[in-house]
Amino acid sequence: MIKAGIIGATGYAGAELVRILMGHRDVEIVWYGSRSYIDDNYAHIYGNMFCIVDAKCLDDNMEELAAQADVIFTATPQGFCASVISEEILAKAKIVDLSADFRIKDVAVYEEWYKIEHKSPQFIKEAVYGLCEVNREKIKDARLVANPGCYTTCSILTAYPLAKEGVIDMDTLIVDAKSGTSGAGRGAKLPNLFCEVNENIKAYGVATHRHTPEIEEQLGYASGKEVRISFTPHLVPMNRGILATAYAVLKKKVSEEEIKEIYDKYYKKEKFIRVIGAGACPETKWVEGSNYVDIGFQVDERTNRIIMMGAIDNLVKGAAGQAVQNMNIMFGLPEDTGLNLVPVFP
Amino acid sequence: MIKAGIIGATGYAGAELVRILMGHRDVEIVWYGSRSYIDDNYAHIYGNMFCIVDAKCLDDNMEELAAQADVIFTATPQGFCASVISEEILAKAKIVDLSADFRIKDVAVYEEWYKIEHKSPQFIKEAVYGLCEVNREKIKDARLVANPGCYTTCSILTAYPLAKEGVIDMDTLIVDAKSGTSGAGRGAKLPNLFCEVNENIKAYGVATHRHTPEIEEQLGYASGKEVRISFTPHLVPMNRGILATAYAVLKKKVSEEEIKEIYDKYYKKEKFIRVIGAGACPETKWVEGSNYVDIGFQVDERTNRIIMMGAIDNLVKGAAGQAVQNMNIMFGLPEDTGLNLVPVFP
Amino acid sequence: MIKAGIIGATGYAGAELVRILMGHRDVEIVWYGSRSYIDDNYAHIYGNMFCIVDAKCLDDNMEELAAQADVIFTATPQGFCASVISEEILAKAKIVDLSADFRIKDVAVYEEWYKIEHKSPQFIKEAVYGLCEVNREKIKDARLVANPGCYTTCSILTAYPLAKEGVIDMDTLIVDAKSGTSGAGRGAKLPNLFCEVNENIKAYGVATHRHTPEIEEQLGYASGKEVRISFTPHLVPMNRGILATAYAVLKKKVSEEEIKEIYDKYYKKEKFIRVIGAGACPETKWVEGSNYVDIGFQVDERTNRIIMMGAIDNLVKGAAGQAVQNMNIMFGLPEDTGLNLVPVFP
Amino acid sequence: MIKAGIIGATGYAGAELVRILMGHRDVEIVWYGSRSYIDDNYAHIYGNMFCIVDAKCLDDNMEELAAQADVIFTATPQGFCASVISEEILAKAKIVDLSADFRIKDVAVYEEWYKIEHKSPQFIKEAVYGLCEVNREKIKDARLVANPGCYTTCSILTAYPLAKEGVIDMDTLIVDAKSGTSGAGRGAKLPNLFCEVNENIKAYGVATHRHTPEIEEQLGYASGKEVRISFTPHLVPMNRGILATAYAVLKKKVSEEEIKEIYDKYYKKEKFIRVIGAGACPETKWVEGSNYVDIGFQVDERTNRIIMMGAIDNLVKGAAGQAVQNMNIMFGLPEDTGLNLVPVFP
Repeated sequence: MIKAGIIGATGYAGAELVRILMGHRDVEIVWYGSRSYIDDNYAHIYGNMFCIVDAKCLDDNMEELAAQADVIFTATPQGFCASVISEEILAKAKIVDLSADFRIKDVAVYEEWYKIEHKSPQFIKEAVYGLCEVNREKIKDARLVANPGCYTTCSILTAYPLAKEGVIDMDTLIVDAKSGTSGAGRGAKLPNLFCEVNENIKAYGVATHRHTPEIEEQLGYASGKEVRISFTPHLVPMNRGILATAYAVLKKKVSEEEIKEIYDKYYKKEKFIRVIGAGACPETKWVEGSNYVDIGFQVDERTNRIIMMGAIDNLVKGAAGQAVQNMNIMFGLPEDTGLNLVPVFP
Repeated sequence: MIKAGIIGATGYAGAELVRILMGHRDVEIVWYGSRSYIDDNYAHIYGNMFCIVDAKCLDDNMEELAAQADVIFTATPQGFCASVISEEILAKAKIVDLSADFRIKDVAVYEEWYKIEHKSPQFIKEAVYGLCEVNREKIKDARLVANPGCYTTCSILTAYPLAKEGVIDMDTLIVDAKSGTSGAGRGAKLPNLFCEVNENIKAYGVATHRHTPEIEEQLGYASGKEVRISFTPHLVPMNRGILATAYAVLKKKVSEEEIKEIYDKYYKKEKFIRVIGAGACPETKWVEGSNYVDIGFQVDERTNRIIMMGAIDNLVKGAAGQAVQNMNIMFGLPEDTGLNLVPVFP
Repeated sequence: MIKAGIIGATGYAGAELVRILMGHRDVEIVWYGSRSYIDDNYAHIYGNMFCIVDAKCLDDNMEELAAQADVIFTATPQGFCASVISEEILAKAKIVDLSADFRIKDVAVYEEWYKIEHKSPQFIKEAVYGLCEVNREKIKDARLVANPGCYTTCSILTAYPLAKEGVIDMDTLIVDAKSGTSGAGRGAKLPNLFCEVNENIKAYGVATHRHTPEIEEQLGYASGKEVRISFTPHLVPMNRGILATAYAVLKKKVSEEEIKEIYDKYYKKEKFIRVIGAGACPETKWVEGSNYVDIGFQVDERTNRIIMMGAIDNLVKGAAGQAVQNMNIMFGLPEDTGLNLVPVFP
Repeated sequence: MIKAGIIGATGYAGAELVRILMGHRDVEIVWYGSRSYIDDNYAHIYGNMFCIVDAKCLDDNMEELAAQADVIFTATPQGFCASVISEEILAKAKIVDLSADFRIKDVAVYEEWYKIEHKSPQFIKEAVYGLCEVNREKIKDARLVANPGCYTTCSILTAYPLAKEGVIDMDTLIVDAKSGTSGAGRGAKLPNLFCEVNENIKAYGVATHRHTPEIEEQLGYASGKEVRISFTPHLVPMNRGILATAYAVLKKKVSEEEIKEIYDKYYKKEKFIRVIGAGACPETKWVEGSNYVDIGFQVDERTNRIIMMGAIDNLVKGAAGQAVQNMNIMFGLPEDTGLNLVPVFP
């Protein structure tokens, strides 16, 4: 039985970790960390867990937690994990960090986009970027996994095969992404009130969103050259789901069959990636509650562009589900253990 | 391995049966019946099932199905099951009927409220009303289970212990219920369009809703006298969930502790009923996707009334989940097999 | 031109006052009071008012405001108006108070339900309860109008004619009310976050909601006897709208035609009350954005009860619209001036 | 008093025309045409109009209507207007056609994208494209105005000044648009059911949406060269609103101040276009119920692109509001008559 601790267990991503791990036969949660609710019953904060979780919230003492746990999930604000991580902790417990602290290899880029000083740059090199389908082999031996961002996971996986195969002109890549509101977290902020979000859609963080450099770095590795993209997130009046609509100019004339073959080359064996095919438009509702990424595309001969579309549940494949998938890989478990979550519809 | 067939597999309740049975280790679905989509790929109708269900829709030939299946779920319009059921079919396969055909013992009452002739009254007596927590023993040996309605399940379980113990004046019982829109089914009807339902609430079927006599009959058994209630359903702009707010005059002065004890007497050992206690208000979101019934209450000394509140997911405990729970009981399986569904939040 | 000042202009009710008064030919807003946003551009707080309102937010200095304005709307938390009102202010400007400070005639009842000390009980007697259709004559000469609560307006107007005519047994009256989320205000509180409200319904303030004594007092005047009701509010995932479903035992057998006649007796000439008739169920969406109250009903002979249903837009007839209607009456204007708002659908 | 007739008065756009014209002091509706509801009370189809509209639905006899009306609005499916229009009708009444029949000058392009034969190509040349802010002068004398599509209005107005001034490379223009569900009409279709749309987002009509050639044609006139764009519409779980996010490469380095000046050059005097400025993101809720177009933008120096964002209410500026604006221009009325609609928030 793997003993798991969660720091930030009362945020939406942390709560989703709890939900998923409740159904994971090989894991026991030993620590529900929540700085805001210390000593409160967890089920009092999340009523859905009444009669399911019988535990109180604890603080965020990573050292003590490392002594009790085999794996620590940090579902915490940027900067937390970097400020507390240590060789001593890593010697005792593996860490899956759901924040951005160890996602970006160039510390200057991190500090520029996140506007905070990185407190533990010495661990950046060791950290493995936990995009399971791309970095599976490296994750197996990792002590520290940087779990990708929600927009990032969706954007990269949608474009990855075509970037890797050199089919699209990376200088023309634009990702227009739409996210449910749980991505904004559970903080009591006016812009996230029901009446402000409901019946409304808006872009935000235009040309400045922090997931941009993360997408660029990873697609840069894939394409073998530096990548600069336009990335625009939008807030949609729904709880869960991210849809990424990506546009790129095709480098040469390719048929939809050829595109499908390229996707299949990389994803056919991937349980959690469903390429729904040419002319098909993924819907976020079809993946809700599950760890799936659904990908569709359309070649537009009129403009010589391809439009790629990817859909995920931001809290599952975009956060907690991928974190558990990473944990499974790190501990040598079948990758889908605890993740056979059938999408909930409607 | 239990072989299961579903007639009406492409309605919302049928699709929820598919979702739940996909996670049931002892069941294999052998028949996806759907008169509207014969020969279509099931995953084409429900995109969430892509790569999960690889089967085509079949017709609703119950005789052929009975030859192949151990259990048949009929998630069909009123009248269908009664029109096709036979001794021959029941000799081969158990039936869990999600329609109202066998819920009401008095065929005249059925025909009055449903405005259709009952084609198989000879099976009404044998049919067991599948409210698991109340009729568990009878369900064990049943060949034919009448799975309760969604409003009914929520309304009855919310009031049952107090009705049974004679604490409330049954002549004063009023149930004001609110339901998500999936309860209206997947038919393409104007009143169920997004723009008609969204940002709107209304009552419907006031004093005439078909679940009324079902609630009355069952609460009549509980209280030992004939019961007449006011039942008002409302349509709420959300996909899933039913909240029943029930009002009754208390027959004598009772404390909230005493009420809690009564609920505990009946429900403490019930895995799927969570009595959240005095002064607590259940929320439909806390049970979404799960088989739970959450119950809270408030004694109002000013008016000498008790306000009882119950919440379920209409597609799970109100339909497919309870159907699987009934199947588990009928086949001697642990009652929660395949039903350890943690509520999804948010 | 009537000069109007608004204290609390950046709450949802205050903003709705601004929206309505922008279309009122006889009113000019001279003061946008908002303690939280002093010196901010109003259109910066409410982007919908860009290019429409060109003014900065001011403080809540009622004395200074009274010197500049003919009428003051206080759309403020409980206790504010009572703490600042004075004879001097009332000598200069009329006040329409949207808070509860002057709604309840018995100061002890006010203090018990609101848990705050009333700072100006000397003005309670003078204050006129601003339920326009009931107290029109008194409002004409009022200096201080207590604008009714949103739930209250809907509940009282729905039951008023039948209470007044003695058709229903007031001891059996139960009001089950459902409200959109704007009723909870614009405060940044966790329970009002999009992800907490969306796809969810719950009761709250069961048997303790502060609008209860207000409904009881007014229906007591109507029926000529003390009234105790059960009132249960619910939070619905929509921005606007209140639906009140009210239940009462009929004192004698009456036909639906007779009930209709009673409603017509009181409301036929009322522009803002639309009795949609027997068997008809009002929908909140049909009144959205307007000052209408839609009322339907159903006599249930089985239980000898009547089910009455009323729908309003909580921010219009339940707050700002009725406040403007009161102002119109106070200033001798046609009652519907600025209130010819056609409901927005969908 | 202008006498107006509406064909298609029971669709969402037609109903919005009714709502707006109810507040237009110079217009009287004399004909509520609705093939589906002939002889039904209009207020029975749209409950919001109870006590406001007292008329029955009529058929779609344009000749008879032309004899009675000064202006006819055809809010009808593609092909209808072209199939009934005649010189005789145009001699009696002006027509504002809300369908696409007369929007595209090249009949071959129309027939290719709409897959129907154009029945009255002889009127295409005469028809004026009713994008008021661009074609105002021509509209003044028009007998037949082709009211622009909803996506089109939003997309064109968002990019128009920069296209006209040659600031952006038109070959790189991509419009990613998001629409509320009322744009899909009031037809009872499964994909538009509440449970299918709610909590979901998807693209549709990728690279094939019919508004594409309309946008291309108009931006072609603006930029003086043939334009090919990528246009991707998305369905968003909200009733109203379109947000267009447009991307283009800048032809040369320009500051945000310069961009703002360009927008101001074209729009500063336009009442219905609000340029909210650099770095500002328009929200659909800020324009809901009104005729405004809100435009914001962001220059991204990293990618040398500009991201332009425009928001409208699809039923107002995207349909009925613009239709009334066109009518006002055609009849020499102040352009904003009946259109001083303050956006409704929340």
